[in-house]
Amino acid sequence: MSKGIISKDEDYSQWFNDLVIKADLAEYSPVRGCMIIKPYGYSIWEKIQAVLDKMFKETGHSNAYFPLFIPKSFFSKEASHVDGFAKECAVVTHYRLKNDGNGNIIVDEDAKLEEELIVRPTSETIIWHTYKGWIQSYRDLPLLINQWANVVRWEMRTRLFLRTTEFLWQEGHTAHATQQEAIAEAELMLDVYADFVENWMAVPVVKGRKTPNERFAGALDTYCIEALMQDGKALQAGTSHFLGQNFAKAFDVKFSDKENKLDYVWATSWGVSTRLMGALIMSHSDDAGLVLPPMLAPIQVVVVPIYKHDEELENISAYVKGLTTELRKKNITIKFDNRDTQRPGFKFAEYELKGVPLRVAIGSRDMQNATVELARRDTRTKETVAQEGLAEHIEKLLEEIQQNIFKKASTFTTENTVEVDTYDEFKRLLDEKPGFLSAHWDGTPETEQQIKDETKATIRCIPLNNKLEAGKCILTGKPSTQRVLFARAY
Amino acid sequence: MSKGIISKDEDYSQWFNDLVIKADLAEYSPVRGCMIIKPYGYSIWEKIQAVLDKMFKETGHSNAYFPLFIPKSFFSKEASHVDGFAKECAVVTHYRLKNDGNGNIIVDEDAKLEEELIVRPTSETIIWHTYKGWIQSYRDLPLLINQWANVVRWEMRTRLFLRTTEFLWQEGHTAHATQQEAIAEAELMLDVYADFVENWMAVPVVKGRKTPNERFAGALDTYCIEALMQDGKALQAGTSHFLGQNFAKAFDVKFSDKENKLDYVWATSWGVSTRLMGALIMSHSDDAGLVLPPMLAPIQVVVVPIYKHDEELENISAYVKGLTTELRKKNITIKFDNRDTQRPGFKFAEYELKGVPLRVAIGSRDMQNATVELARRDTRTKETVAQEGLAEHIEKLLEEIQQNIFKKASTFTTENTVEVDTYDEFKRLLDEKPGFLSAHWDGTPETEQQIKDETKATIRCIPLNNKLEAGKCILTGKPSTQRVLFARAY
Repeated sequence: MSKGIISKDEDYSQWFNDLVIKADLAEYSPVRGCMIIKPYGYSIWEKIQAVLDKMFKETGHSNAYFPLFIPKSFFSKEASHVDGFAKECAVVTHYRLKNDGNGNIIVDEDAKLEEELIVRPTSETIIWHTYKGWIQSYRDLPLLINQWANVVRWEMRTRLFLRTTEFLWQEGHTAHATQQEAIAEAELMLDVYADFVENWMAVPVVKGRKTPNERFAGALDTYCIEALMQDGKALQAGTSHFLGQNFAKAFDVKFSDKENKLDYVWATSWGVSTRLMGALIMSHSDDAGLVLPPMLAPIQVVVVPIYKHDEELENISAYVKGLTTELRKKNITIKFDNRDTQRPGFKFAEYELKGVPLRVAIGSRDMQNATVELARRDTRTKETVAQEGLAEHIEKLLEEIQQNIFKKASTFTTENTVEVDTYDEFKRLLDEKPGFLSAHWDGTPETEQQIKDETKATIRCIPLNNKLEAGKCILTGKPSTQRVLFARAY
Repeated sequence: MSKGIISKDEDYSQWFNDLVIKADLAEYSPVRGCMIIKPYGYSIWEKIQAVLDKMFKETGHSNAYFPLFIPKSFFSKEASHVDGFAKECAVVTHYRLKNDGNGNIIVDEDAKLEEELIVRPTSETIIWHTYKGWIQSYRDLPLLINQWANVVRWEMRTRLFLRTTEFLWQEGHTAHATQQEAIAEAELMLDVYADFVENWMAVPVVKGRKTPNERFAGALDTYCIEALMQDGKALQAGTSHFLGQNFAKAFDVKFSDKENKLDYVWATSWGVSTRLMGALIMSHSDDAGLVLPPMLAPIQVVVVPIYKHDEELENISAYVKGLTTELRKKNITIKFDNRDTQRPGFKFAEYELKGVPLRVAIGSRDMQNATVELARRDTRTKETVAQEGLAEHIEKLLEEIQQNIFKKASTFTTENTVEVDTYDEFKRLLDEKPGFLSAHWDGTPETEQQIKDETKATIRCIPLNNKLEAGKCILTGKPSTQRVLFARAY
């Protein structure tokens, strides 16, 4: 253990927790299962938000804001939806506190709500209630709306970023005139998510569909992207749902088409959350700390001066000033850490812990030789390079690091995605070399449930790019036409 | 009444409500007092957020996120704080629903929380509980943090944007080593707010201090900016609080200084909310709809083509394409509304309603003459101008409109700020020509309360730029050393 972080080979779960705490990303709050996102962690989330928000707007979506609270009766209007969420809802029952006369603050029983309010676990119900007022004609469609918000799901077991009672997310809610258009929207947003997670977060994903068992409560089809973490467990990084006409029917949302014929509207919803932070951290980091892809790193380059005398620092500072100007023109974020309260070694360790992609160290000898020392966080390698052309070199290196991180994660995912044909082999691999297990399944929810009960592995998805292939179910031996992707998951 | 909006001279309150609804800014939700911010309204809020967020970061602040829920016991730790907020708190008491066996979804009484949770009305308590873990030494100070969040205050009378049960806001929470530094921070953030409200929203404000009666619950001093709406009522547009050591003492947050001496930390908090949207709408708009200052308008220029034949439209489109490129280079937002489903007159009215600062209309004759028709939303005037140099002309005009809107509001505020020396005159003006009434007050909470009870006017602030002036309290005739600003307020 270094820096208070246990080795990931020793205890992956504890390593993740240590890392989140030590790198100042988040911590638990005194409210059960709720987290505090610290400034450094939040600055990464802000970058994620900014990029996704731009992508949503470029695909025609607008942001809006709907209430935090949902009347209990609304929540129950779509039967499978309430079944899916009722067990994990925070309920507001009163709207006032009072002094009990003995100096204690208690809930005022005279201020009991007539109808209890649910703190939104997701907003389909309140949004579809609203859409009824917004949609009358085909001219009002498609309605393409997104919301950035906090939601609450009362989880029994929580983990920072991965599963918290309150979390931050975005939820898209769209309405369409036709089934085809709604399905196309759900698929488009899955592509947007995959693009973001692969090309910004540098995390490779498998795009697929959920089995009926694993669908969102109220959806006809749930698309998902699944990523493999370094411990061989899968993580669902984003979902996009085709909701059919379920919510339109529950909230009576009809539109008149060009021929003046009335029909229910077709719907989608899609979301990603602060869980992405968990995927980002777990995919790339190591025992020395966080490894961030340059495209999401709040600080891309840090410069640490090495000096004894003030005139040396002045000399170095003058050089760094010029470098900073050049890098800023290239939209590269640079930090010059000239604190005199900490030694260079301390700073090196700190920026390694925080995952800064490139570190530049400059001492007096470097200034004489017109060189700097460049250290890469991803490979933990150093090189001495010329000051001349450094900005261009850094720009290229950042691109290379982004690609290298993705390549490394892709190789890991490929190496840990294995075709399995027997249940014994399936169980052996789950214990000895966990990863994505591509196996035949007879298509029944019973078999899926039995495998889950016996092995804790679930069907992560039926990959979209699946080839048809005749085979036999690993559990029942019944015929199957395609492989599905199993894994133990977060 | 036009466009379904009542005249503001007839019923200002109803005019505001009509305008918010008709301009697609917001609407009430089925949850009592909670609003839905519609895409157009939210796009203005996003601009407000973006500018303020940049200003906060430029003054050294970082964003973070703290839980939505606060344990009831925390909330009661600062005595005046709980007194100020207990009467308007949404309380979470349960964490699960269930089916009662007859198909009804009810609250599961087996899932009652041991300690009730308060939905945050403001976050001082949970944040100061957290700061205890973050602050040990002077090296950890100042701690400069901001949060963008939703908060809930159970209001009995609500109005869209101005007073809603749930609202969106930002809350800054800072910790400092000395009293002077904390006061300087509170004053700095007041200046940031005033700068934003005057120079972006084009709403003139008076900077001042609240009287003890009107202070934030838990503050030693509350600074505020007050603006005058077109009906002569005041609106508090932002507040910045010097909290002294109250919260540090309540949550035991001490730091060791350079001499290793322990002391409690000094605090500030400051916030603005979606209430700013109300101030923006009420300050500038007229009976034809919204008037937006160019610097916050989601669409700054709209182009409406006037044509009969498709080749005319092609011709106009080609020209608009070039204009768009030029304006985008100047960071001016332009929309080309070439919908063939609506007539030009309909579009003119729609963009007027939505407050787009500049409208460009182009017909075939304009194309022949190499001119366009330009219409300003603020003055409702039109002019025919040459296509040559149009982008530069638009750029200048937008600046002129921004200044003109501010000047108009400033003139209104100046004309409706009156020095009053007798209580009779004070009461007469409140009824006949309401505005800011600058009057002497004897400095006692009793007098302040009596004036409020009798006239509904409150002391909005003691202006920061006040001159000392001997006088007599308008109510009691007792001596006073300075005038304070009274008004009826939102």
